[in-house]
Amino acid sequence: MRFDIISVLPDLLTSPFAHSILQRAQKKGIAEIVVHNLRDYATNKQKSVDDYPYGGGSGMIMAVPPFAACIEQLQTEREYDEIIFMSPDGETLNQTIANQLSTKKNIIILCGHYKGIDQRIRDIYVTREISIGDYVLSGGELPAAVLVDAVIRLIPGVLNDETSALSDSFQGDLLDAPLYTRPADWRGHKVPDVLLSGHEAKINDWRHEEAVKRTQERRPDLLK
Amino acid sequence: MRFDIISVLPDLLTSPFAHSILQRAQKKGIAEIVVHNLRDYATNKQKSVDDYPYGGGSGMIMAVPPFAACIEQLQTEREYDEIIFMSPDGETLNQTIANQLSTKKNIIILCGHYKGIDQRIRDIYVTREISIGDYVLSGGELPAAVLVDAVIRLIPGVLNDETSALSDSFQGDLLDAPLYTRPADWRGHKVPDVLLSGHEAKINDWRHEEAVKRTQERRPDLLK
Repeated sequence: MRFDIISVLPDLLTSPFAHSILQRAQKKGIAEIVVHNLRDYATNKQKSVDDYPYGGGSGMIMAVPPFAACIEQLQTEREYDEIIFMSPDGETLNQTIANQLSTKKNIIILCGHYKGIDQRIRDIYVTREISIGDYVLSGGELPAAVLVDAVIRLIPGVLNDETSALSDSFQGDLLDAPLYTRPADWRGHKVPDVLLSGHEAKINDWRHEEAVKRTQERRPDLLK
Repeated sequence: MRFDIISVLPDLLTSPFAHSILQRAQKKGIAEIVVHNLRDYATNKQKSVDDYPYGGGSGMIMAVPPFAACIEQLQTEREYDEIIFMSPDGETLNQTIANQLSTKKNIIILCGHYKGIDQRIRDIYVTREISIGDYVLSGGELPAAVLVDAVIRLIPGVLNDETSALSDSFQGDLLDAPLYTRPADWRGHKVPDVLLSGHEAKINDWRHEEAVKRTQERRPDLLK
């Protein structure tokens, strides 16, 4: 699977893609993540990628031509399944969307910055708009990293232990049960006896009950 | 405002905090972001921070002692308003929570990794659990960066133009109206006439109508 991310701040994304599961997926050849500097596609003398908004107002708007040039260059190299714009008014990312995207081959992600991007980029090129949540961020770079992480970890072979992804919160509509590791007693705070019992059926029952209880308390909407 | 982030992969967070608004806020002295390597607080010979889960199951669990040592060290240095654990089963981040947190002084953020963290860390230390959305990620590092970004940009003086934050999506319960910049005609795709009219009242009306229309289409839940 390949991600092409177009950003005006490509260096912001260096470290998240160079560690942990995203690094491992790239080393194994399962995923390729290429970050493109939008400024390399600026066509005017000043190499600018943004301009004042028509109709007035504060903030700068990212212009059509640099995005168009970068996207059209990439499209001469391979076919893309989706061109995603990270935007607070897109559909809200969830595990179902992450699962869907993990079956695709080539995806372009556009990162907005400044006040926003020219609507025509969205109208002409973008096939899907995704928000990572109802809050405003400085730009689309962190949301792009979040999306790539959520998707790539679902590709078979990326996680060491495949059952890990399957037992994650949200994959089964229940939150995780509480987890414990050594020491069994930490300053008087003890691990629940059942987990030390060695009785597998009882442990599974307890975990299921706790997962249901936590989901009821915290996220009853997931149970409906 | 100060953020202390505790992570087993501190280097993952280098580049997001070294660019854009987060860099500017730190240079201006408005925000301080310190990332702590959890391994520096490991107490055993192997410098391990995780161990097998009690009761069996896949994945490793982050143990209590290293988090306890790091948090307690920080607490000798200053008082903290919140100790936040980034977790998919926490309350879902939104603009209201970001606004609340932007008025705080000192915040610790714990990043989980691997399968999860020992429940006792959450019971004993954590004052608030926050999720950035209903999807599973490799660790709490990107969510921590998202939270810090959402909060810091709200502190007065961080954005160049304060009206920019006020007119963002979600601050007024409406999504943004479409935005346009030059060229006025791009391969036949034109900017709406009203934005070129210079008639401020008409432009404001149009933007309000478009914002309402977009919100109705995409996020009717925000209008209720």
